[in-house]
Amino acid sequence: MNEPIYAGIDAGGTEFKCIVATGPDRVLVHEKIPVADPATTLAACRDFFLRARQEHGEFAALGIASFGPIDLHKDSPTFGFITSTPKPQWSNTDLVGYFRDALAVPIHFDTDVNGALLAEHRWGAARDLHSVVYVTIGTGIGAGVMVDGRLLHGRMHPEAGHMLVPRYTGDPFSGACPYHGGCLEGLAAGPALQQRWQQSPLSLPDSHPAWELQAHYLALMCVNLTLMYSPQRILLGGGVMERAVLLPLVRQAYLAQINGYVGDQRAEVENFISAPGLGGRAGALGAIALAQQS
Amino acid sequence: MNEPIYAGIDAGGTEFKCIVATGPDRVLVHEKIPVADPATTLAACRDFFLRARQEHGEFAALGIASFGPIDLHKDSPTFGFITSTPKPQWSNTDLVGYFRDALAVPIHFDTDVNGALLAEHRWGAARDLHSVVYVTIGTGIGAGVMVDGRLLHGRMHPEAGHMLVPRYTGDPFSGACPYHGGCLEGLAAGPALQQRWQQSPLSLPDSHPAWELQAHYLALMCVNLTLMYSPQRILLGGGVMERAVLLPLVRQAYLAQINGYVGDQRAEVENFISAPGLGGRAGALGAIALAQQS
Repeated sequence: MNEPIYAGIDAGGTEFKCIVATGPDRVLVHEKIPVADPATTLAACRDFFLRARQEHGEFAALGIASFGPIDLHKDSPTFGFITSTPKPQWSNTDLVGYFRDALAVPIHFDTDVNGALLAEHRWGAARDLHSVVYVTIGTGIGAGVMVDGRLLHGRMHPEAGHMLVPRYTGDPFSGACPYHGGCLEGLAAGPALQQRWQQSPLSLPDSHPAWELQAHYLALMCVNLTLMYSPQRILLGGGVMERAVLLPLVRQAYLAQINGYVGDQRAEVENFISAPGLGGRAGALGAIALAQQS
Repeated sequence: MNEPIYAGIDAGGTEFKCIVATGPDRVLVHEKIPVADPATTLAACRDFFLRARQEHGEFAALGIASFGPIDLHKDSPTFGFITSTPKPQWSNTDLVGYFRDALAVPIHFDTDVNGALLAEHRWGAARDLHSVVYVTIGTGIGAGVMVDGRLLHGRMHPEAGHMLVPRYTGDPFSGACPYHGGCLEGLAAGPALQQRWQQSPLSLPDSHPAWELQAHYLALMCVNLTLMYSPQRILLGGGVMERAVLLPLVRQAYLAQINGYVGDQRAEVENFISAPGLGGRAGALGAIALAQQS
């Protein structure tokens, strides 16, 4: 029982998943805290961790995997902040500072999608790979990227979900992104599906043309991810991908669109574009994986 | 005069630029060798280097910056090869093996655009930056990418020039890419300009609508590069960018298209999207920069 104990927060737009674990096989305690204003939400997380610490002992580190945009540059005055999010009240929220003061443990901070990707790399469907993209298609579209064994950050962090892609011929939907209208997220995230078809995506039957069109756009995304990052595998997760009919359609459309440009991928496409291995656990385990990086 | 001497080859589709230098300020000898069949071309390069070595002494290393696609994985049986290029006779050409046998010096091998980016990073317009994209827009469109201080490779290497982008409303041109029709390269490389306007791009006056349309497509490219790689700067080079009217139009269109998504960039856009610092020398100096990596 000498394994180090890690704390994690998967900070999402609707709930913060708090977890205390030694790894994926030994979760000591976890709790979902619904998002209210920052002060209330962060205090509830703090109280959870203080209770957990009393019961299970000191944490080796805390990992925070957060929705964005966030500031990841350690030399920046706003390092550890959620920065200019459109989410009411959450702009300029100092996540790292709050928990450094509250818990006094080392903290590792990254995007939610980079966290999930790291968990998939360590324990899930990206083991033994050095270059992988993890995409979540849900309320928004976000991508975590590992290239040559390292999580990609750059000046800020990738926002690949907003990439500009060709409109499907004759598609009349103008797009749902407040910044770019018909960027990828504006055309293919959950709210776009809802707006385009004027009903919940959950109520669209498998035979509905919505899914073929959705696969078309996600295949365009996979083509651009492949050309830009040269990954060994692309993992597609998030609520929208729970529709089982979608993944095979995406693979088929991808092969047609990339047209053999990076070699004949027909035999490997099921490995190349695939489902995450950790399912709904990737977010919280991502925070643990980040804590272990610390 | 104890500085090490480096050899470099900028292997382009129409000529191989061979160079022997200690760095950008002291080029000992250089020569352009027109591309014929592989045996003839490589032998001419070898003879150039053997003569140079006799005159100037042994090389510390050779850098090869090559057109692609190429195999960069050291554990691959075709490491150092130009692989599946459409260029007649050049598929499966073992560049690294040829010069290892001919010169018996350490060799560092990368894409032509990664080489040029490395030279810009060391001596040109990307000094002191950790995340930069270098794009050449000429016969084709290619991008070299550095993120977080390292050249990006992945499974193969990026082929960002073939990214899929939205068609400009009403643009009737079907595109010139043999793989993807109207991908970025198919819409905006030199041959696409030639086909679209049925004349040499050189003969199009500055006032021709061609340049506004070209700027539109290159701005879309810059948006996607920004969202995918989160660079601190994008350098636009290559023959097409020699048209001076183009760069300001690209910046203007970029600001409109990205619409503030990664912050207000109006004051910094001239730095953010700019010209390379080494001009036509970036290719050959890129090979020297690669040699110095060895």
